[in-house]
Amino acid sequence: MRTALSLGRRGQGQTWPNPAVGCVIVARGHVVGRGWTQPGGRPHAEPQALARAGDAARGATAYVTLEPCAHHGLTPPCTDALVASGVARVVIACGDPDPRVAGRGIAALRHAGITVDIGTLRDEAERDLAGFLGRIHRGRPEVLLKLAMSVDGRIATSSGQSRWITGPGARRMVHAMRARHDAVMVGGGTVRADDPMLTVRGLGARQQPVRVVVSRHLNLPLDGALARSAGDVPLWLIHAADAPDAAIAAWKGRGAHLIACPADRAGLDMGAALQALGAAGLTRVFCEGGGALAASLLKAQLADRLAIFGAGLALGADARAGIAEMGIDDLTAAPRYQLEEMRAVGGDALMLWRRR
Amino acid sequence: MRTALSLGRRGQGQTWPNPAVGCVIVARGHVVGRGWTQPGGRPHAEPQALARAGDAARGATAYVTLEPCAHHGLTPPCTDALVASGVARVVIACGDPDPRVAGRGIAALRHAGITVDIGTLRDEAERDLAGFLGRIHRGRPEVLLKLAMSVDGRIATSSGQSRWITGPGARRMVHAMRARHDAVMVGGGTVRADDPMLTVRGLGARQQPVRVVVSRHLNLPLDGALARSAGDVPLWLIHAADAPDAAIAAWKGRGAHLIACPADRAGLDMGAALQALGAAGLTRVFCEGGGALAASLLKAQLADRLAIFGAGLALGADARAGIAEMGIDDLTAAPRYQLEEMRAVGGDALMLWRRR
Ligand SMILES: NC(=O)c1ccc[n+]([C@@H]2O[C@H](COP(=O)([O-])OP(=O)(O)OC[C@H]3O[C@@H](n4cnc5c(N)ncnc54)[C@H](OP(=O)(O)O)[C@@H]3O)[C@@H](O)[C@H]2O)c1
Ligand SMILES: NC(=O)c1ccc[n+]([C@@H]2O[C@H](COP(=O)([O-])OP(=O)(O)OC[C@H]3O[C@@H](n4cnc5c(N)ncnc54)[C@H](OP(=O)(O)O)[C@@H]3O)[C@@H](O)[C@H]2O)c1
Repeated sequence: MRTALSLGRRGQGQTWPNPAVGCVIVARGHVVGRGWTQPGGRPHAEPQALARAGDAARGATAYVTLEPCAHHGLTPPCTDALVASGVARVVIACGDPDPRVAGRGIAALRHAGITVDIGTLRDEAERDLAGFLGRIHRGRPEVLLKLAMSVDGRIATSSGQSRWITGPGARRMVHAMRARHDAVMVGGGTVRADDPMLTVRGLGARQQPVRVVVSRHLNLPLDGALARSAGDVPLWLIHAADAPDAAIAAWKGRGAHLIACPADRAGLDMGAALQALGAAGLTRVFCEGGGALAASLLKAQLADRLAIFGAGLALGADARAGIAEMGIDDLTAAPRYQLEEMRAVGGDALMLWRRR
Repeated sequence: MRTALSLGRRGQGQTWPNPAVGCVIVARGHVVGRGWTQPGGRPHAEPQALARAGDAARGATAYVTLEPCAHHGLTPPCTDALVASGVARVVIACGDPDPRVAGRGIAALRHAGITVDIGTLRDEAERDLAGFLGRIHRGRPEVLLKLAMSVDGRIATSSGQSRWITGPGARRMVHAMRARHDAVMVGGGTVRADDPMLTVRGLGARQQPVRVVVSRHLNLPLDGALARSAGDVPLWLIHAADAPDAAIAAWKGRGAHLIACPADRAGLDMGAALQALGAAGLTRVFCEGGGALAASLLKAQLADRLAIFGAGLALGADARAGIAEMGIDDLTAAPRYQLEEMRAVGGDALMLWRRR
């Protein structure tokens, strides 16, 4: 199952709205087939692993990270493929809450006389599939908020110098993180300040994540890197209903996809914005700031995980804060996280935190 | 030698102005004696290890973390004890730059026909003995600056709530860190805000570190925890020459030791303050903030190491900064650190950084 999980992770960022599933077929102690959900979400993991296994699947055990589908979608049901292959046993890490599956996959296998075990490495599978599962349960994608800061939480000197706080290892790792997400999201302030491209670079050709920008009135540079590339790499803009028609038309003309969303005085309603992204199929969103958007997400308890890159320098209270004002008077109101992992990345410290 | 180093570390915080040395005697593959510098700096490690070994020392190898002393101080020279014991070989991690030793220890051993090897695990020994070595080379103690902050470098909400940002594990670890230092140092602001005791608690009876407070005009509460305990646990106050005579007299009356030091508009000259602490014999100083003192030390490149406890919560830019203004415009002026170690402590992340 551990192998199946790591195969499944290969598909992360490539399969939305489908889950990135892994499958391993084991016959007499030997792996005879492996598969994982392919880019675009098809083919599924199971038929690929079974095709590799061929006749060796007969009487074998299939390890699958998520309950196999039992319905006719764009692909035939994976349960049919498993039954036809003659496997004797299917081990499943976690159930699929999709109302079209929801136990029917397991029932179909058992009905065909296959032994089904469920729950092996369930916690790990639920973590890997949290984007997919959360979209079904909460209607929104899982959000990983990344922040690269000095030891005292600063991202630039008072004069605005910020290149480079973290080292090349951390920057490479950020590209790898982008690649495992369905979308990369930033606030309008970051676009205006940095004119970023927000693509995955240096990791070989692959499907690029959707680029999402949160900007109430769409006052974003129409001659910038995002505008120039909007025809090639998906660019989604979340804006308020009162954004100027001219801006909406101009960005549509560039090839951007526009999503209107409620707003109040503090900015766009990020809960509603994430629901809209979920409805559009996104399961895993990687937010790269800046400080204002990070504060909004944190305050609304919408940042499910944090990736904090701590650089070995101190800048002091007059330097720019990595997280903007949150208006927290009482410590009990602060969003709390538990430490999931920490490691050195180049000269920087990476801490991964998960919301309690 | 690894064992000798860990024995040596047992004495940290207890032996100043002497180094905390470890010694292991090995005869025919077996440890026959172990010793480390005792509280107060005497007896030294070598005579204790030799006494344990007794006759078994004859022909054995002694592992010592620092070059043995060759001069008559309050104890007879350790080189004499080693020669008298009949050891055949002495392995030394690093040389002692104290002008009274500085190679003479090695020469005396070799002169007596003992084989001497030097440099085994030197880097590790130099790290452990950095306080002692630095005091000789730079005239000042090594400074470990501890800061306990949220992921965004905050130590309290805007309304001042700060109990508790980090958990009980981190707080226990702070007491253990205090115990391994000769002195605990804070700024006057922390004393006025928190009325701290600054002692080691919960680790059994032991020699308490000296408590050092940095306060220009000594406007510190004469009815606080420090004043009440100044007769029992050493309290040193660093002040400017223009501190009121009445305050100086009052604190002397309480039993505090007063150290005058130059000051400018920014406060006391912390370089001079640390030189004074070095002259008074301190080798390892543990600074616990607050934010203003931390900023001063960092800016003046006087914080040799950082212990950052990162708590799993975010407080935002309107919360109180853990490090005060540093006036850094250019990133190249920021003090830079390299990551030495990171680990989870209770629910918090501990990062240890060393100045580049
Ligand atoms: N070190 C790092 O990890 C990192 C990462 C990213 C950025 N940065 C830096 O951060 C700076 C930009 O940060 P920033 O704080 O100014 O801007 P930001 O967070 O990127 O964007 C804030 C903008 O987003 C829009 N917005 C709409 N709804 C919002 C909501 N609910 N909450 C927050 N924002 C909302 C607003 O612009 P509209 O008026 O367009 O609606 C707002 O001004 C740049 O200097 C950049 O270099 C650093
Ligand atoms: N979370 C943590 O790790 C932690 C640790 C410690 C403190 N704290 C918090 O930090 C707050 C206190 O911090 P703070 O920044 O106000 O005070 P601070 O750094 O403890 O002390 C600053 C004071 O030290 C004196 N000083 C003299 N020379 C100085 C110099 N060169 N540089 C800096 N200070 C010098 C000045 O007081 P005089 O006028 O007396 O000279 C100055 O006001 C408290 O709220 C406390 O709870 C948190």
